[in-house]
Parts: sequence; structure tokens; C-alpha cells
Amino acid sequence: MAGTDSTRKPAATVSGGGAPVVVLVEPQLGENIGAAARAMLNFGLPEMRLVRPRDAWPNYKAINTASGAESILEAAKLYDSTEAAIGDLHHVLAATARPRDMAKPILTPREAAARLRADTADRMRCGVLFGGERAGLENDDVALAEAVVMVPANPAFASINLAQAVLLLGYEWFQAGREAALPELPARRQEPATQADLHHFFEHLEAELDACGFLHPSDKRPNMVRNIRNIFTRANLTDQEVRTLRGVVKGLAEPRRRS
Amino acid sequence: MAGTDSTRKPAATVSGGGAPVVVLVEPQLGENIGAAARAMLNFGLPEMRLVRPRDAWPNYKAINTASGAESILEAAKLYDSTEAAIGDLHHVLAATARPRDMAKPILTPREAAARLRADTADRMRCGVLFGGERAGLENDDVALAEAVVMVPANPAFASINLAQAVLLLGYEWFQAGREAALPELPARRQEPATQADLHHFFEHLEAELDACGFLHPSDKRPNMVRNIRNIFTRANLTDQEVRTLRGVVKGLAEPRRRS
Repeated sequence: MAGTDSTRKPAATVSGGGAPVVVLVEPQLGENIGAAARAMLNFGLPEMRLVRPRDAWPNYKAINTASGAESILEAAKLYDSTEAAIGDLHHVLAATARPRDMAKPILTPREAAARLRADTADRMRCGVLFGGERAGLENDDVALAEAVVMVPANPAFASINLAQAVLLLGYEWFQAGREAALPELPARRQEPATQADLHHFFEHLEAELDACGFLHPSDKRPNMVRNIRNIFTRANLTDQEVRTLRGVVKGLAEPRRRS
Repeated sequence: MAGTDSTRKPAATVSGGGAPVVVLVEPQLGENIGAAARAMLNFGLPEMRLVRPRDAWPNYKAINTASGAESILEAAKLYDSTEAAIGDLHHVLAATARPRDMAKPILTPREAAARLRADTADRMRCGVLFGGERAGLENDDVALAEAVVMVPANPAFASINLAQAVLLLGYEWFQAGREAALPELPARRQEPATQADLHHFFEHLEAELDACGFLHPSDKRPNMVRNIRNIFTRANLTDQEVRTLRGVVKGLAEPRRRS
């Protein structure tokens, strides 16, 4: 943060939504967590969150690899679930090495950085999910994101190390901030929904869909739930829109309840 | 010399003078050499040269860290001096973390990649020097280069790990090549919904919301309808998603209809 901001107007960038949060989901190797922290400090991403790291925390291998970026590790927060880790964020992207069978926009790191710059300037809290070393993010985690970030690379050898993926995102974030001091955007009229709001809506909708039998053949349920969540995740809902949707679901389902 | 001659025929089809050579000068840690090799294979830089690596070669820590990019290490050549390592090259850049007291152009990785693309397209053999972990390149090595590459980063924490510096150069090299000739993008697997599909869904939803009384105070109806349509219009729905949503609305409303 200090880096980006100290080069140009310091207050302007900070007063936005702040730099994007880096969320490592089930990271395995302390070395990679440390190297990610170093890359984050290089490029002005101060906030790391960890979802169920494999090894005990604090992790001394992480500290050894951070090479001066221990402050990032010390401030890192731990979470039991990806949902919990992103609850307070407005916009979430997911870094993934392979295309998923989901209807989500695919962004390069450069496109993602431009989007994150615009959203944080618009006072949104943003985050990017990175999966563990073995297999990357689960589909359920990717489903939480509104778009996917893929690094264009040699198709015969496209697997990017976890810390390197964080580095590339951070690098593009920093370069995007250098390119232009963003003009003041008109004030947003409506508050965006947080991930937690969205999650409550999903739970409500899915409970009603369970009750009416729509989600029934239970082997298909996870996929149906994911597809439905995808639709709404992508829509960048406002606070008010989530309330409207809850009203819609309640309105449609309620009369049945009463009968 | 061998390098120059071989570019005339076979390499011409690939990209003129071939991809830039990565020259690691006095690298210390095998892990970083391995991680650099991995990054090189990720981004289409096949040729590594090593000037006086600290440890014995082959280096098993390097092999362990290469994670599939061992071919780069196996083909790496060793040299006693930087001059020898760059003897067959036409253009040499030097990656450095700090400005030197030398009258040389300073390029960002992006600018360097554009220059390397132009030079290699022009059948030039190019290389980039990277210094060891402890102190980077000696001034004498920097002096051999026609320009310096510096990664813009947090001025309070600008030191980039050796492998990360190679990664960033490779990444920009690859992106610069993509811009010229875009490889196939992941195909969109699902058909987008037509406006007519969307409209039928809206009519269905609104009929049900009228039936359950949700849209009742009729002076507010036009605005509520507009807000709800907005949500779904923004989501860029696929054909399949519209069918899913119609199923959701039907599922929620149907039991009432039957009762």
C-alpha cells in the first residue's frame, strides 16, 4: 500500500476500498505463503487471509521465506471457510489455472488489475482467491467469484506456482496504479451487497427450493446450486437488489407456506 | 557463431532470433534456479545460461524446484564469465533492482518485452542478465548491457527475488507475443440467451409475482419490475441459465397453484 500510494496522491488511493485482499485457500507449503507475502509487500497488497492452511500457524517456513515481509504474515487472518474469509468483501475474483465449466468472465491479470483498480477507487472492498498447490481452487470456491483470473501461459506448461500467481496479480495491480491516477468517479448511488448478504440470500433461496422439491434428485443438487449461485454472483448485486430478491423468493413461496 | 547462424533457417519460423536467453550471473540458491526454470517454461523462454553458479552443477535443489521444467536445467550451459555467456548475442539487457550511476535507458519489464519482441522479430539474438541473490549484478556486468530493466515496485520494499524477476520478464515477453497473435481463447461453452428468451422469463416471473401479490401497490409496480429486470439483464445469462431460472420460479410458485 505504501508503495503505490507514496508514488502519487497518497490519500486518494487509500480512501477507496483499499488494496485487494489476497485470500489463500488451503495453502500447503509455508514457503509459498512466505513468498506470496513478499510479493504482496513488493506490490502494495498488505492484507492476506488464509483459509484452513494445511500446517500450523504461525508457520516458520513462511516466516523464513518472507524475507522482510513478515508484517504481512503477522497481520494475516485465519478462516474456517472461504465464505467466512470473503464475507465483508464486495467483489471477489478467483485465480485459476484451468478453465472451468462455468459461465464466468475470464480475465487476464492485467484485465483483473484494471477492474480491481476501478472497483477499489469506487470504494468497494475486493479480494482475489488463490487455491492450494495441489489442485487449485475447488469449483465451489470458484463459484463464489464473479470472474476468473487466468494467466496466459505456455499451453504445454501452464501451471503457475501459488506465490508466482500472487506475484503476477500484485505486479499488474501495482502497474495499473502507476499508469494513471484515477479520476474521481461519480458517487455510487447504491451500496453494493456484501458477500455475506449474498450468502444469506442463497441460503434462503436454496431452503425454499429444497422445500418445493426443485433441488430434489440429490446427486444433481450441488451442480444446480452452483449454477444458480453463479447467475447471481455475476450480477454484482446491490444491497437493495438482494433485499428485492429475498422479497421475490418470499413472495413466490409464502402463499404455499400458509396453505 | 553458432547462435547467430542457427537463427537464419529453423528459428525464423518460431520468432526471428528466437526467445531471449536468460543469463543468471552467480546465482546462489538451487531453489531459485529451479523456480526460474519453471517460470521460463511457463512463458516460452527455453534457454538458460549460468555464469559461475555458487554450488555444484547439476544442482538437485534446482531440479526439485523446477517441478516439470527439468528440460530447461538439462539444457542450461555454464560459463566462466558474463562476457563469454553473451558472446553470441546481439542485444543484452540487465535486470537490476536499483538504479545505477550509468547513463543507460531504464526499461520496465513491459517496455523491455516490447523491445525484445521487436529485436527478435528482426532476427536478433537477445538475452537478459539477472544477478545473484545477495547483491544483484556487478556494475561491470550492467555495463555490458545496452539498457537496464527495473521492476516498478513498492519503494519501501523493492527487492524482487531472482526467480520472481525472471518470471516477470517471461510473463511480459509472453503477453507481448500474445498481443500480436492471440492464441485460442477458451471457447464459450454455452449459448447466450436471446433477448426473447429473457423476455419470456420476465413475463413468467412477473405473472407469478402479480399472482402472489408481491407487485401489488400498483403505483410502485413499474419501478419494481424495472429493478428486477435490471438484475437479470446485467448477468449476461446463458440459454441454460434462463431455463434454470424459469424452473426456479415455477418450482417456487407451483405448489401454491396446485393447492
